[in-house]
Amino acid sequence: AEHALLTEWEELEKEYLNLEEDHKLYQTKIDEMKKSQDVCSKGISHQKYRIKQILESVKKAEASSKNAEDLAKLKEIQKKATNRKNQFREMEDILPHKNGVYLSIILGEVNVSLLSKQDKFTYKQEYEKFKLVCTVITLVWAICLLTFLAGYRWFDAAFDFLLVWYYCTLTIREHILKVNGSRIKGWWVLHHFVSTVCAGIILIWPESDSFRKFRDQFMYFSIYLALIQIMQFYYQTGALYRLRALGERHSMDISVEGFQSWMWRGLTYLLPFLFGAYLFQLYNAYVLYQLSHDPKCEEWQVYVLAIIFLVLFAGNTLTLLGVVKKKLSK
Amino acid sequence: AEHALLTEWEELEKEYLNLEEDHKLYQTKIDEMKKSQDVCSKGISHQKYRIKQILESVKKAEASSKNAEDLAKLKEIQKKATNRKNQFREMEDILPHKNGVYLSIILGEVNVSLLSKQDKFTYKQEYEKFKLVCTVITLVWAICLLTFLAGYRWFDAAFDFLLVWYYCTLTIREHILKVNGSRIKGWWVLHHFVSTVCAGIILIWPESDSFRKFRDQFMYFSIYLALIQIMQFYYQTGALYRLRALGERHSMDISVEGFQSWMWRGLTYLLPFLFGAYLFQLYNAYVLYQLSHDPKCEEWQVYVLAIIFLVLFAGNTLTLLGVVKKKLSK
Ligand SMILES: CC(C)(COP(=O)(O)OP(=O)(O)OC[C@H]1O[C@@H](n2cnc3c(N)ncnc32)[C@H](O)[C@@H]1OP(=O)(O)O)[C@@H](O)C(=O)NCCC(=O)NCCS
Ligand SMILES: CC(C)(COP(=O)(O)OP(=O)(O)OC[C@H]1O[C@@H](n2cnc3c(N)ncnc32)[C@H](O)[C@@H]1OP(=O)(O)O)[C@@H](O)C(=O)NCCC(=O)NCCS
Repeated sequence: AEHALLTEWEELEKEYLNLEEDHKLYQTKIDEMKKSQDVCSKGISHQKYRIKQILESVKKAEASSKNAEDLAKLKEIQKKATNRKNQFREMEDILPHKNGVYLSIILGEVNVSLLSKQDKFTYKQEYEKFKLVCTVITLVWAICLLTFLAGYRWFDAAFDFLLVWYYCTLTIREHILKVNGSRIKGWWVLHHFVSTVCAGIILIWPESDSFRKFRDQFMYFSIYLALIQIMQFYYQTGALYRLRALGERHSMDISVEGFQSWMWRGLTYLLPFLFGAYLFQLYNAYVLYQLSHDPKCEEWQVYVLAIIFLVLFAGNTLTLLGVVKKKLSK
Repeated sequence: AEHALLTEWEELEKEYLNLEEDHKLYQTKIDEMKKSQDVCSKGISHQKYRIKQILESVKKAEASSKNAEDLAKLKEIQKKATNRKNQFREMEDILPHKNGVYLSIILGEVNVSLLSKQDKFTYKQEYEKFKLVCTVITLVWAICLLTFLAGYRWFDAAFDFLLVWYYCTLTIREHILKVNGSRIKGWWVLHHFVSTVCAGIILIWPESDSFRKFRDQFMYFSIYLALIQIMQFYYQTGALYRLRALGERHSMDISVEGFQSWMWRGLTYLLPFLFGAYLFQLYNAYVLYQLSHDPKCEEWQVYVLAIIFLVLFAGNTLTLLGVVKKKLSK
């Protein structure tokens, strides 16, 4: 038996030598890849720099020239430059991106680039699933808190903690999405920051008269929001799959009528509920504002939360109107 | 001027064609690198699997054989296998690693591997700097809270928020370090989880008699901890630089006497203060336990915090004793 084992080991050793070769080759491939990466990155920034210079000269020439033919030529250059910029965007898809301030603070300088379309798609899909799971948990929890868990401040606190954690995590993931080229509007990300602060303030709101008066309303609001978020999940994943099937998200053009009509149908369902949620936020702000005028109310949380809900209402409404307007104009 | 611009644009266009070639080459290099990566990963898992099988057979053979020479051969195989495993560890340094549960939940399936020694070193260095900056902020803040900001619950809450955020962020970064092969003990990471919970509970502790009685003590404790953490920073970055100069962290061997003596000198300074901090935690637990027996005290936070501080004391002390014992036996 010992002998058999020894020969077996020696065989394995031979395979190991091969593996060592593969490993060395792998290191070489990494180095080559990085070098090639550098060449591309530098090339793109050089081109961008030059294009910027040319466009500036074009602007100047346009101002001074009045010849129609010349102006046409200048317009042509501008059009080509815009085109070129879109091409760079495509090229940058497989180049690593620098983390912004937020990710640098939270994660440090670790590279979170997803270097293929497939990886990006999977990551986005997972992000939507993560939101869905957390939403369902908050939904069930909020219902429990309104029924048989009512009156235990401890469970309320745990719920608020969950919200703080959830919104915090969302902002991290959304920044990763942004680094990887998602066009998610800045406000939705900021909105999750503000929501984190909002949940944090509710968390430290001492159990007082004002707290008890607002608490149930906040639970109803959370339930309503959770239900909407489930609808959003179906819309967003639907859009994700369809756009993937269409090939490219950002080079989407108007001729893709199937997608457009699907999208508008989805939005028609969604928009009334979304505006309903924003009105609910306005109503929250109003109720809190009234509460804060109660002479018995001493908690600063009430007043600050009123302002936060007002900000959420205003930011959401304006952004959503902007999105709809832009979609209509396409 | 229009003409000059047009020729300039055409020149740029030519360069762009080169860039397109470079970009294609880059995509090829990525693909090759990934393929080579796959080969290595599979090779290593195959070897590991075979070695495990062989070691099992060796165990069986050892039990049945009594021949001294055979036994020596079997021991030889075992020694070689251990060696081989260390070699795999080295090889895996430049292979991507799967995120654990925690990172998968927070970040999702994004790859946070650092694929070179240099990147790992930079990341660790940055992690230490991040801790230092946050520590100095808490130090200054805690001193303010003890002097001219005393009595504003709002500033206290913001301080506790900062601690929650800081410890949360630490655990994320430490998990990234672990994914990249750091040997940081599980307890220190867990310790930061527990600290997050601890700060969270202090955050929601209503302003009551018990809160006011413990508040100053907690501030003194925070200051003491911050001072120690600054000492730790000097020790850890010192160790980091020295080990880097020595070449390899994990293949460190006893002959490197210079490092060993430096380390022991550092530890001799550090250890008394660390044990002092743990005794402080024990004292916190004791004071809180006493407070919780006060008939006027109704807050559940007091009792729970007493337990948490006791857990921190016990875990820290045991882990530190374990670390010292292991270092002594080397
Ligand atoms: C109105 C709405 C349905 C439009 O969605 P849309 O059709 O995908 O909008 P856009 O075309 O502007 O999307 C651009 C990108 O942002 C993403 N995005 C849009 N809204 C988002 C949101 N609320 N959260 C996360 N990502 C969002 C899209 O998925 C898309 O990503 P991609 O570039 O990676 O493909 C969507 O913005 C929405 O649901 N907003 C309401 C959010 C809200 O108010 N939630 C809580 C209520 S308080
Ligand atoms: C005792 C101590 C100084 C030993 O440090 P050390 O000599 O680096 O210990 P080890 O050799 O076991 O270190 C192994 C790895 O863990 C890291 N590490 C050790 N303690 C760490 C800690 N507290 N935080 C983060 N990383 C730590 C080391 O940097 C090393 O990393 P590497 O594998 O990437 O090179 C250190 O563990 C320590 O400071 N512990 C006390 C922590 C504490 O109690 N803090 C708060 C007081 S409540």
